[in-house]
Amino acid sequence: MAQSLTDTNPVMASDASHVLSVDAMGGDKGPATVVAGLSKFLNKNPDSRAMLHGPQDTLEALVQKHKIADRVTICAADDVVNMTDKPSQALRHGKATSMWSAIEAVRDRKAAVCISCGNTGALMAMSMLRLRKAEGVNRPAIACLWPSRNPAGFNVMLDAGADIRADQDDLLTYALMGASYARNGLQIARPRVGLLNVGTEEHKGRAELKVAHEIIGEAAEAGEYDYVGFVEGGDLPSDKVDVIVTDGFTGNVALKTGEGTATLISELLRESLMKTPLSILGALFARGSLKRLRKRIDPRRVNGGVFLGLNQTVIKSHGSADATGVAAALHLAYQLAQSGFSDKLAARVASAASLAQDTPQEAGSDKPGTKTG
Amino acid sequence: MAQSLTDTNPVMASDASHVLSVDAMGGDKGPATVVAGLSKFLNKNPDSRAMLHGPQDTLEALVQKHKIADRVTICAADDVVNMTDKPSQALRHGKATSMWSAIEAVRDRKAAVCISCGNTGALMAMSMLRLRKAEGVNRPAIACLWPSRNPAGFNVMLDAGADIRADQDDLLTYALMGASYARNGLQIARPRVGLLNVGTEEHKGRAELKVAHEIIGEAAEAGEYDYVGFVEGGDLPSDKVDVIVTDGFTGNVALKTGEGTATLISELLRESLMKTPLSILGALFARGSLKRLRKRIDPRRVNGGVFLGLNQTVIKSHGSADATGVAAALHLAYQLAQSGFSDKLAARVASAASLAQDTPQEAGSDKPGTKTG
Repeated sequence: MAQSLTDTNPVMASDASHVLSVDAMGGDKGPATVVAGLSKFLNKNPDSRAMLHGPQDTLEALVQKHKIADRVTICAADDVVNMTDKPSQALRHGKATSMWSAIEAVRDRKAAVCISCGNTGALMAMSMLRLRKAEGVNRPAIACLWPSRNPAGFNVMLDAGADIRADQDDLLTYALMGASYARNGLQIARPRVGLLNVGTEEHKGRAELKVAHEIIGEAAEAGEYDYVGFVEGGDLPSDKVDVIVTDGFTGNVALKTGEGTATLISELLRESLMKTPLSILGALFARGSLKRLRKRIDPRRVNGGVFLGLNQTVIKSHGSADATGVAAALHLAYQLAQSGFSDKLAARVASAASLAQDTPQEAGSDKPGTKTG
Repeated sequence: MAQSLTDTNPVMASDASHVLSVDAMGGDKGPATVVAGLSKFLNKNPDSRAMLHGPQDTLEALVQKHKIADRVTICAADDVVNMTDKPSQALRHGKATSMWSAIEAVRDRKAAVCISCGNTGALMAMSMLRLRKAEGVNRPAIACLWPSRNPAGFNVMLDAGADIRADQDDLLTYALMGASYARNGLQIARPRVGLLNVGTEEHKGRAELKVAHEIIGEAAEAGEYDYVGFVEGGDLPSDKVDVIVTDGFTGNVALKTGEGTATLISELLRESLMKTPLSILGALFARGSLKRLRKRIDPRRVNGGVFLGLNQTVIKSHGSADATGVAAALHLAYQLAQSGFSDKLAARVASAASLAQDTPQEAGSDKPGTKTG
């Protein structure tokens, strides 16, 4: 890997795989929360370092307060991308923003992964412009973690909303990228991949899904995953699959539906337990168990949508993330950075996608149904 | 309403709006469960009657056992549509099935609403063939109830999976039908309608959604609903909207994702509470509250997908429904039957849809963006 590191400051002197590039601005709770999360993360990972992007004076004060100045390089950027900015606006007028600066640092190989709590659309648009799509990728995707019954505690779902469309070839790319992410992010040697549909029978669903079903199955060997076929919405938290592939429209609706349902039930549970003196006493006795459950399904623990299909890795943290949530996104980023994920993913997609593109012409020519798309 | 009632049996002698047509077969738990649910329902609704379709001897024994023989007419049908049958198979070979017989009874106006626990695809295909689409409807939809924060306790979502596609005109029809269902099924005089998308900003989403956004807004006055614009997956259980409109692919994934998430959380809660002696004691104290919560989010209480857009109403009960679930679907059916829902809906769609078809040409000609579809 070509690196343009210089020795002018403590961050750049170290190996870039230990360095995270953090956009301090754009989250709902402001830079104080991001720096508090960064401090939590740095304290747990003694070899890690960070580049922090935003207004110099504000960040300097925060970094001093948390006593992490020796492990953080502040990169001054005075502008901020707002949550309401359109991606096109952000691209045209965004060069002086903290988000742009944070992406530039991974583009220049000074840091391994970029993390931002800001505007998702703008972050994806800037990342595509500056980092470029990896070879063989038409549509990048956002992969999210979904609390599940699996031993790892999570499943991977993609696309969670990078693009509102995906054709059969995009879905194949998502399968390859999702499997690679599950290997490097969740340590699952041979992930099981499923394709989201409205039923598990082969005759169901849209035409592009039937073609995707064929080609994802055919690429399983080369992609080193097991293909379990169609799965349904109810399988997202299940232990019969590790990686769930879908288009970004469906994936985004599913993600927000799952979060909304979990929030409703938590609120109803709390209200229900506070209703009678006896149940308040009961809740008190069960407090430890309820707390463990809340932790298990806490959306802050699964914070971090990973942009897949670019030449470097970018992670989008929830806009409303608190310090715990920011720290979770940074932990995930660091784990991917340490595993050399960006380069592994690029190699995987480039080789397996070109392999799979040949497959239907050879093996599929005698199969009716593979040519419908 | 033209009715072909004769006086040959107790059911047909009464007004058909008091009569439900019940398919006893096709559910996972067999006819005993359906008849048990029917018995529960009849006991709570003294004026109601039923036509029960399936094998004569089996049903006679069950009806005798539950002492409801005087209020039930058994319609002999020896064949059954299986859960694995393709809709096309069921249409070709289904004339002797209990499902077909149950649909015929509403077609002949002997009963007001048809209820089946059987194969959804086959039920929709047979219903379309025998009951025909209502005037102005291109794609019928399945509407489901979603536990929510609203005073009624539920929101309406459609399409839950009748069709895997919907264009802008279908989405407008869904808005009109969903509003009519909310008025008659949930007693909401002026329902608030939202269109499901990946964000609430006007520039987001697929082209057909942007057009649907315009025409659903324009038809609000004629359709007697308030249009709240785009909503997200997280709004499905919220109190900011009563009716959520989407295509059947997205709707089906959202529905199953919500159910899967609720099931996972319930299971984790139970496991968590059983882990320590103290929390077992706590759960015991809180038993009443936990039971109320379970009832509030119990999928059996929201049992019943209503087929909208046909000339009569058909309700699909969960295949795995128990007697409580079957009774819930029958209660819903009876409420819609009593309100004269089928005819009201047909009139609504026919008049408002033709009105809305004219609107874009008149009012939209000076608005950029209304012509993208």
